[in-house]
Amino acid sequence: MSTATDHFLIALEKVLGKPDSPIPLHEPEFPQSAWEKVQDCLDSTFVSSVGKYVDQFENQLAEYTGAKHVIAVVNGTAALQVALTVTGVQPEDEILMPALSFVATANAASHCGAIPHFLDSDSRTLGLNLDVLEGYLNTIVEVTSRGTCNRYTQRRIGAIIPMHTYGHPVAMDRLLDIADHYNLPVIEDAAEALGSTYKEKHLGTFGLLGILSFNGNKTITTGGGGAVLTNNPSLAELAKHLTTTAKLPHRWQFFHDRVAWNYRLPNLNAALGCAQMEQLPELLCRKRLLAQRYQEVFRDFREIDFVVEPDNSRSNYWLNTLKLKEADPVSRDRLLTVANDAGYQCRPTWTLLHKLPMYTNCPRSPLPVAEQLEASLINVPSSAKLAGATTQ
Amino acid sequence: MSTATDHFLIALEKVLGKPDSPIPLHEPEFPQSAWEKVQDCLDSTFVSSVGKYVDQFENQLAEYTGAKHVIAVVNGTAALQVALTVTGVQPEDEILMPALSFVATANAASHCGAIPHFLDSDSRTLGLNLDVLEGYLNTIVEVTSRGTCNRYTQRRIGAIIPMHTYGHPVAMDRLLDIADHYNLPVIEDAAEALGSTYKEKHLGTFGLLGILSFNGNKTITTGGGGAVLTNNPSLAELAKHLTTTAKLPHRWQFFHDRVAWNYRLPNLNAALGCAQMEQLPELLCRKRLLAQRYQEVFRDFREIDFVVEPDNSRSNYWLNTLKLKEADPVSRDRLLTVANDAGYQCRPTWTLLHKLPMYTNCPRSPLPVAEQLEASLINVPSSAKLAGATTQ
Repeated sequence: MSTATDHFLIALEKVLGKPDSPIPLHEPEFPQSAWEKVQDCLDSTFVSSVGKYVDQFENQLAEYTGAKHVIAVVNGTAALQVALTVTGVQPEDEILMPALSFVATANAASHCGAIPHFLDSDSRTLGLNLDVLEGYLNTIVEVTSRGTCNRYTQRRIGAIIPMHTYGHPVAMDRLLDIADHYNLPVIEDAAEALGSTYKEKHLGTFGLLGILSFNGNKTITTGGGGAVLTNNPSLAELAKHLTTTAKLPHRWQFFHDRVAWNYRLPNLNAALGCAQMEQLPELLCRKRLLAQRYQEVFRDFREIDFVVEPDNSRSNYWLNTLKLKEADPVSRDRLLTVANDAGYQCRPTWTLLHKLPMYTNCPRSPLPVAEQLEASLINVPSSAKLAGATTQ
Repeated sequence: MSTATDHFLIALEKVLGKPDSPIPLHEPEFPQSAWEKVQDCLDSTFVSSVGKYVDQFENQLAEYTGAKHVIAVVNGTAALQVALTVTGVQPEDEILMPALSFVATANAASHCGAIPHFLDSDSRTLGLNLDVLEGYLNTIVEVTSRGTCNRYTQRRIGAIIPMHTYGHPVAMDRLLDIADHYNLPVIEDAAEALGSTYKEKHLGTFGLLGILSFNGNKTITTGGGGAVLTNNPSLAELAKHLTTTAKLPHRWQFFHDRVAWNYRLPNLNAALGCAQMEQLPELLCRKRLLAQRYQEVFRDFREIDFVVEPDNSRSNYWLNTLKLKEADPVSRDRLLTVANDAGYQCRPTWTLLHKLPMYTNCPRSPLPVAEQLEASLINVPSSAKLAGATTQ
């Protein structure tokens, strides 16, 4: 075993202790109130798309994030598809997004018939590279009667989606300036960022719309779940309408006025979310403690940096992330192998979206930083409960 | 109050008793084991897309229906969209379906970029009118190098979707003969039909694929949920792949090979389904008792027929249905008003799909029977627990 992998395992053990059984990358925890609310939901028999917990969960999310309107849906992909749809994205529009993201970001665009257009990343925030973005847009954008278009493909640009990678904020004030300049709507993919703020404002509330995810591996989970956030009342109304089969209210008549979805979060799942929202500040506090512990242990590490929250930001540290100083997929995979063999569930970042077969022909900017990050990022176990596992 | 409405209320009271509070159209009931399984699911922390209850629910459904493969998903609309996709439906294909159906049938086709093509109903089964279908297909179909096409629109016909209305079976042997003759894949919309059989075979297992729904108003519910049924192993594999972001199995790598969805039923919801599957035979038994009681009470009724299961069929009587002998929306609405005012939640059938604004320009056959049914059908309270409510 090389020195680097030795050191790596020793560091993980310092933070996480020696595993009796494999330590998952991220697992949820449920307070006692989760049981109580779920049982109350079953007792009411209102387990489906109508019920008090859906409304309550939306209200809790609105209060917590500061978004004026929240629409709870079945998952983050659905939330992003709905957000793009109410923004007015049309088939064949291009949607600007980072190449370094989970596949759902691109799939949501595809589900609207739109075409992902991939952009490079910032090695500091792991999100969109704003320095490069500005110059790139200047090169590709032409304003026509159809709106902001890509002069090379002649397609309209429908939106720009910053994604807050692992909960680390993109500098939203500067991004909004750039987007405004080119008249591009901003939809924030804050799927991973519940609890993260930029300049003390919650992520997902800067853009025209934002989305959250509550899948099983997220900071809080509803089994499957997501939410659309917006301050715009008419977009909120339309989003809710489109997620509930676009049925017009009537005592008994079934009349629907749009092609729409059955995307409403069931009350059963919302009940689980309500309980965890009460617990969220305490969860985040423990997650920060864990991140701090990783930061201490990996300080002065020769081969590896710990990724810390960007300036002006407070990150939820959804997934704690290490970065090899020398990007190298072989070294990365060696570390992943020894860590996973030793019972620490670690993983690389996602395969860059333009390398997936269905997205290889999509337009893209040069992606040197994203390529580097792909070869150098490692996520390490990040559950809140691990904050107490330290051996020190 | 007219004599007809008087009689109607007296009949409802005979079956359902006098309501203390409004009697819902359909509400679920959960056995003690539902709570135990949901609690076990929470204790395991596996509430999301991985967990033992999803597999168990799929196995229970496979065993119960006789389908070789079952894929549990977030809802019936998603199930139908996936079924159409794995069948090979392409954008601009036409999908044959009854005009008398819930909007989800048409929406699922739209979500594939396909175009609904509406057909007439049978006043006996409330499903597709097979006599008319045969002649209609003979008129519109032309076989070209692209497959079975509509000679008038020149579009390919991608599939035919029989829908088993309120759980009453379409005569599937004859429908399959017709579909075979025109080389059309059959996808059964059995959203309402869990527990219904035709010639002792469960609905949803006759076509290339079938789908079920477990929304809150269905015979059993998982909050939100649905399932794809098929006997074809490669279609089953593809359906599962497409509902789980098309991720290829790997120890840590994120590689996805198709545009796909996050449509997997969460384990939390599946746990609720598992408990109710154990209870299903007994639920169905009570639902049949209730249907029998409606049938007795409305026998010899001058203005109204009770809709009974078609020949060679066993219906789950998901929603008990009355039919005015004289189709007339004014009389229908008068009955709906007095019933709902008296605390019996009743509703008409769905607005015919070709009358919804987004579907008015879709192709359609003449729809005389569907129009008649729209003006004459009334659903009456149908929960299994009402079987014991009779005042006789």
